[in-house]
Amino acid sequence: MALESYVVVHNIAKRHNVGTLARSATAFGVSELILVGRRDFNAFGSHGSTSHLRFRHFHSLTDARLFLKEKDCDICGVEIADGAVAVNEHPFKKSTAFLLGNEGTGLSAKECEICDFFVYIPQYGCGTASLNVTVAASIVLHHFGVWAGFSERTRDGNKFVVAERPVKQVRRNHCAETEDSIIEERKSKRENASNGFFDESGNDGSPSNLLDALFGD
Amino acid sequence: MALESYVVVHNIAKRHNVGTLARSATAFGVSELILVGRRDFNAFGSHGSTSHLRFRHFHSLTDARLFLKEKDCDICGVEIADGAVAVNEHPFKKSTAFLLGNEGTGLSAKECEICDFFVYIPQYGCGTASLNVTVAASIVLHHFGVWAGFSERTRDGNKFVVAERPVKQVRRNHCAETEDSIIEERKSKRENASNGFFDESGNDGSPSNLLDALFGD
Repeated sequence: MALESYVVVHNIAKRHNVGTLARSATAFGVSELILVGRRDFNAFGSHGSTSHLRFRHFHSLTDARLFLKEKDCDICGVEIADGAVAVNEHPFKKSTAFLLGNEGTGLSAKECEICDFFVYIPQYGCGTASLNVTVAASIVLHHFGVWAGFSERTRDGNKFVVAERPVKQVRRNHCAETEDSIIEERKSKRENASNGFFDESGNDGSPSNLLDALFGD
Repeated sequence: MALESYVVVHNIAKRHNVGTLARSATAFGVSELILVGRRDFNAFGSHGSTSHLRFRHFHSLTDARLFLKEKDCDICGVEIADGAVAVNEHPFKKSTAFLLGNEGTGLSAKECEICDFFVYIPQYGCGTASLNVTVAASIVLHHFGVWAGFSERTRDGNKFVVAERPVKQVRRNHCAETEDSIIEERKSKRENASNGFFDESGNDGSPSNLLDALFGD
């Protein structure tokens, strides 16, 4: 079976982290970005890539874990935890979902419970306790792609070729899937899966959401 | 001689790229962040790490190159260019300065001219032509640190230990060094070098600068 990677974000909707995260996720061949809890977010920074990334929503970490275990995925926490392995050592075995902590607090005890193992990114300097969450996620996803031997995307000059933008299907910046639709969707093939849930406008009818996403911590 | 890394940014002051870039630079043991051309920037996203990073300013790329060659540094362009090597192959030989392109356009012909070689980050998905510049820089700096065998920073629980914050010396968010002061400074040791040129406020007396940095492209 082909190796896959997933990203799991739990109640994270700060600044434009989800937008830039989505851009990195599609760059590194992530199959799905899974939102747990909060399903609204800000796509600022995604440069259109949210249209190319498949999103899925679960109400609880337990539900997300069940879904991933059905897919025979390891769940890897990205956290400077005891027993965490440096990500450049590639401690991967099979398809893997990467669970990201919130900036500041990192992964909670409840989040750690669903993880099979942990990776961290070695730091060498004295000026910061941790990396930006999107930077950390990007480094981890990059390493997984190298380990998995994903095929490199075609280039055109000094850019990678971007696919045609899929048609938008539902309202902006909101992961529209309900549990019922998830069950329904499991029956359908990935190729037919919903895409284009989001766009770049940052306008989901809640102006405060954009500012919160940009300036909140 | 100990291996060192440098980051060179040319006229880049968009969104909060310099702030988050500074955070990654200090995490990955970068010796100096070198600003060429524009010397004002926005430190939003740095989480205090600009205080721990040494900054230097040059008016031209030629001056920056001379400085780096005096230090026997290779200059490595981070760009998806012909002949660029995948960064995970670690094509490094000695101390290296990494020159970053602007988002969108990448490195200009003039910028490419001062580079000794190029690295790029392989992409696997179809949704984006390139990575966020700070994400790209972070992946490259991470790999250089792994290759160079930098010593890992001490940890305390699930965070790396941050050093005491140095005393601020000059005005905020502005790289104050002139060419004269650079010459002067070359005479002094790194340990005594100026630090703390910047802070987090994003307030340099130019309110439009913050918005430009946040929303400009």
